[in-house]
Amino acid sequence: MNQTRVGVVGYGTIGKRVVDAIRLQPDLKLTGVSKVRADFESSFITEHGIRLYAVTQEADAAMKSSGISTSGLLKDMLAESDVIIDCTPEGTGAKNKQLYQKVGIKAVFQGGEKPDIAQTSFVSEVNYADSLGKDFVRVVSCNTTGLCRTLSRINEEVGLKKVNAVIVRRAADPNEIKKGPINSLVPNPAKLPSHHAEDVRTILKGLDIFTSAVIAPTTLMHVHVVSAQLERASTKDNILSALSKSRRIRLVDSSMGIDSTASILEFAKDLKRPRNDMPEVVVWSDSVYVKDNEVHYMQAVHQESIVVPENIDAVRAMLKLETDPQKSIDITNQSLLG
Amino acid sequence: MNQTRVGVVGYGTIGKRVVDAIRLQPDLKLTGVSKVRADFESSFITEHGIRLYAVTQEADAAMKSSGISTSGLLKDMLAESDVIIDCTPEGTGAKNKQLYQKVGIKAVFQGGEKPDIAQTSFVSEVNYADSLGKDFVRVVSCNTTGLCRTLSRINEEVGLKKVNAVIVRRAADPNEIKKGPINSLVPNPAKLPSHHAEDVRTILKGLDIFTSAVIAPTTLMHVHVVSAQLERASTKDNILSALSKSRRIRLVDSSMGIDSTASILEFAKDLKRPRNDMPEVVVWSDSVYVKDNEVHYMQAVHQESIVVPENIDAVRAMLKLETDPQKSIDITNQSLLG
Repeated sequence: MNQTRVGVVGYGTIGKRVVDAIRLQPDLKLTGVSKVRADFESSFITEHGIRLYAVTQEADAAMKSSGISTSGLLKDMLAESDVIIDCTPEGTGAKNKQLYQKVGIKAVFQGGEKPDIAQTSFVSEVNYADSLGKDFVRVVSCNTTGLCRTLSRINEEVGLKKVNAVIVRRAADPNEIKKGPINSLVPNPAKLPSHHAEDVRTILKGLDIFTSAVIAPTTLMHVHVVSAQLERASTKDNILSALSKSRRIRLVDSSMGIDSTASILEFAKDLKRPRNDMPEVVVWSDSVYVKDNEVHYMQAVHQESIVVPENIDAVRAMLKLETDPQKSIDITNQSLLG
Repeated sequence: MNQTRVGVVGYGTIGKRVVDAIRLQPDLKLTGVSKVRADFESSFITEHGIRLYAVTQEADAAMKSSGISTSGLLKDMLAESDVIIDCTPEGTGAKNKQLYQKVGIKAVFQGGEKPDIAQTSFVSEVNYADSLGKDFVRVVSCNTTGLCRTLSRINEEVGLKKVNAVIVRRAADPNEIKKGPINSLVPNPAKLPSHHAEDVRTILKGLDIFTSAVIAPTTLMHVHVVSAQLERASTKDNILSALSKSRRIRLVDSSMGIDSTASILEFAKDLKRPRNDMPEVVVWSDSVYVKDNEVHYMQAVHQESIVVPENIDAVRAMLKLETDPQKSIDITNQSLLG
């Protein structure tokens, strides 16, 4: 099989998982990783047979003086790749885009970037086809991805008339030691609505949705409390059946002991998932409450891993490696969800 | 003035604050405090001129052997009081009620008890008159009190058609070291709705309200995200004006730096409030979003102190010390809110 060469820019929370995911795909080949800092992750990369590219000459010199051998600069990685997945922090993707345009390479961006960085925003199960052949695609943020996955299923099944979602955000990723709060709840922002509603509408066009967010002192996962008015009356079984059609939605029941974000990730450990990841959005099935045309439910989002499958599918759409969304989704699911 | 003699059973988070509040009222006199354990709080009580009553003979012996002098047993305190405020942990109030009935003394219970322990549940600004002359009254929980205070104002102003509230609960009080979570979000419960909706209806009869709750690892305050459909169209100014009519609702603006539960309590410290308390429910004015007949807002509830004014007012209603609700509320506010 002629493999598509994918370069990854940035090796943070998302980048390192995207790197691992690319290496599991039959049709993709990792060119390498571009990084800016000489640190334990840079040496980890080279020690594990992955080509490391320095973003700048200065970074290259710093890496070499730390005994880390590089395979060249970012521009070299671009030349050796068919597509880039940009996993840099918020705002950096926008700067990098100029570089990608200059050399004429396609790129996937993350949800920290503004929607207009790309020709379309992306959630695999909702609008894969919109990205076919596109040059620049933006995978939406973890919270937006989680909302779109479940809302799109309910929308298909019974139609969404109006949605209200409250997002309890994790304060920091487990590896972040400079962020807070450590003992406070923080409206994020206090001025309503939060930006998530607009971001969801980049995927579910025209949806009447209102979102609010509060940051809580935890590192594991986000939790969403979703309420919606439906176009027509439904039942709990109906909603659960709609949600269970996606392998990227995992239904759990608190009565079986999966009663918190902590126990969800304990379960991920038991599944022997790499890095204890849970790329599925996790819906508590016992939280699903339906009365006539009203539904309420609670779900949890693993911010470190939920967008990884989307990044892989976006590449397949942009390169037209698969024109049938479900074919790409199935390959990705098989490799990441087992 | 002939002062009404009030005995307090239990000296935990609520009890100690109720004790302090009683001592600030011109028409009330603290008989003393009944406690079960010989600990630093027992000796603190006696060292500060408050009469300590042991719940049982055993407790009395334990206190005396710890060098703490008591003024007798709980039954003695009941005999010397006109009314009891029971601040014992959830479920204990129900057991104590039998004792109060036996000796024929009126009692206020806390929100941890089931509604049927009392003849009515109580939130001062909503249903004070229902408690006039009653023998047993239940002050509702901190979350329910916070919801009722703001919802009742909006209901009076423009009418509430339907309410959805998401409660982000603090995991433990600052003094509690055996409760969690310390790094997880916990649906509480996962099975929706949470009990708060029903509890709100003990005060705002017949209100169409749905509630969900998630526990977060923080000790300071709860945060509520409230959404409601109104009977008629309103404006942000209209809602803010309705809320500002109550001194038990404090409006803050995140743009002035009061942007989290931590900064609310920092502000309470600056106000030199005893124990850094904030008995008002705190509404972020910039969170108030109104569009046509829909309102959204965020508020914070200081679980340690919000129900203290209600406990005082309940006594005045039950003993008919004030038959005009606002008169009692004003006296209490003056003493506690400055």
